[in-house]
Amino acid sequence: MSIGKLYGIGVGPGDPELLTLKAAKIIGKTDIIFAPKSRDGKPSVALSIVQEVLDERTDEFEVLEPLFPMIEDKNELDKHWNEAANLLLEKIKEGSDAVFITLGDPTVFSTFSYVAEKVESEGIELVIVPGITSFTACAAAANIQLTAQNDIMAIVPQVDERLSKILPYVDTVVAMKTSRHLDILEDCIKNDPREKSVISVQNCTMENECVVDGFVYNKQYFSTSIIKFNKK
Amino acid sequence: MSIGKLYGIGVGPGDPELLTLKAAKIIGKTDIIFAPKSRDGKPSVALSIVQEVLDERTDEFEVLEPLFPMIEDKNELDKHWNEAANLLLEKIKEGSDAVFITLGDPTVFSTFSYVAEKVESEGIELVIVPGITSFTACAAAANIQLTAQNDIMAIVPQVDERLSKILPYVDTVVAMKTSRHLDILEDCIKNDPREKSVISVQNCTMENECVVDGFVYNKQYFSTSIIKFNKK
Repeated sequence: MSIGKLYGIGVGPGDPELLTLKAAKIIGKTDIIFAPKSRDGKPSVALSIVQEVLDERTDEFEVLEPLFPMIEDKNELDKHWNEAANLLLEKIKEGSDAVFITLGDPTVFSTFSYVAEKVESEGIELVIVPGITSFTACAAAANIQLTAQNDIMAIVPQVDERLSKILPYVDTVVAMKTSRHLDILEDCIKNDPREKSVISVQNCTMENECVVDGFVYNKQYFSTSIIKFNKK
Repeated sequence: MSIGKLYGIGVGPGDPELLTLKAAKIIGKTDIIFAPKSRDGKPSVALSIVQEVLDERTDEFEVLEPLFPMIEDKNELDKHWNEAANLLLEKIKEGSDAVFITLGDPTVFSTFSYVAEKVESEGIELVIVPGITSFTACAAAANIQLTAQNDIMAIVPQVDERLSKILPYVDTVVAMKTSRHLDILEDCIKNDPREKSVISVQNCTMENECVVDGFVYNKQYFSTSIIKFNKK
């Protein structure tokens, strides 16, 4: 019996139509669907995005939903990642191909990175299928350009003192999950003397999508702000 | 007769399977397909990506291929962009919906930005559909992660003195179209004291895709280098 392989598939920001043809094809025929969820009792967002593809399947497949809690405790996290990776490894070694679905793209701040390393270190073949990243979807929703010509863009997941160092030299900043660090972000942006525009997008391409000028002061998890500086 | 609207659609990096379901659906039913090409006599790369979707259509549609030359002369470029935008406007005002297809994503260094502004200033409805960006597809092809946890990533289309200013504070640099500025890029990276890894991808997801460790010294247009710095 041969060993299976692992697909790391980005399912995009939320709208099921933003799946790629390749993602839909692979998700439509692979034995094991691995869909991380952040909380027991709460369905996986990634899984809801591919539900329609799964509903159309007439063959047999298995959906596994390991718990990837959003916690800070490194040891506790490691425990969860190891459990998830071991479960995946077991299935793959039994000969099944598996898909690990992840919001956005599997190479950009993705839960996939945590298990990919371990699975790959065991010699399992890994195939990554890129997905629509949240920040390009946010720009599309806001009807703005992220970058043109020789613009430099910085993608910042957690604002710290480094942002003020790079800010004078970049044209576009994408601040992700802004609700976690809005105070320091806003200060930092305010102190830049250039003309700027700020647009924030919450729950991009999801049912409750919201696009506003400026920053947003609620605690929505899926919050992204795009800051663009004028060149002159 | 009502006025049409304009879809700006990202068709991804090259592999037709990296179209989104949404892109394929809209391209499969819109009256006018606008596919910029860089040279007379040379087919549009974006058009080749959607050719299969168009081949399956049984209804009538029109494909227009305006010339968007890759030149530096700003006036000459403006002339081409204006011509393209006017042609689009004419069709849309006649009542047709139109799709402008663009490699990668329409909001990231895209030719779409040049006509979007003009079309929008005429009050035409604009719908942007995000696409797979070249850099996430490159990371997928190279089987590496771009970012994890609190990494800051800089996307740099044309290396200038600003890169050395931001470099100490970022964890990942994506250098696009590296063949145009490889000398200065390589110097800049070499001078950073941190441990680093460099991977270059050419013609990502296309027939002649090539992934190599380090930089590549040929003049391929579709060249991207991903530089990752170790944290410790």
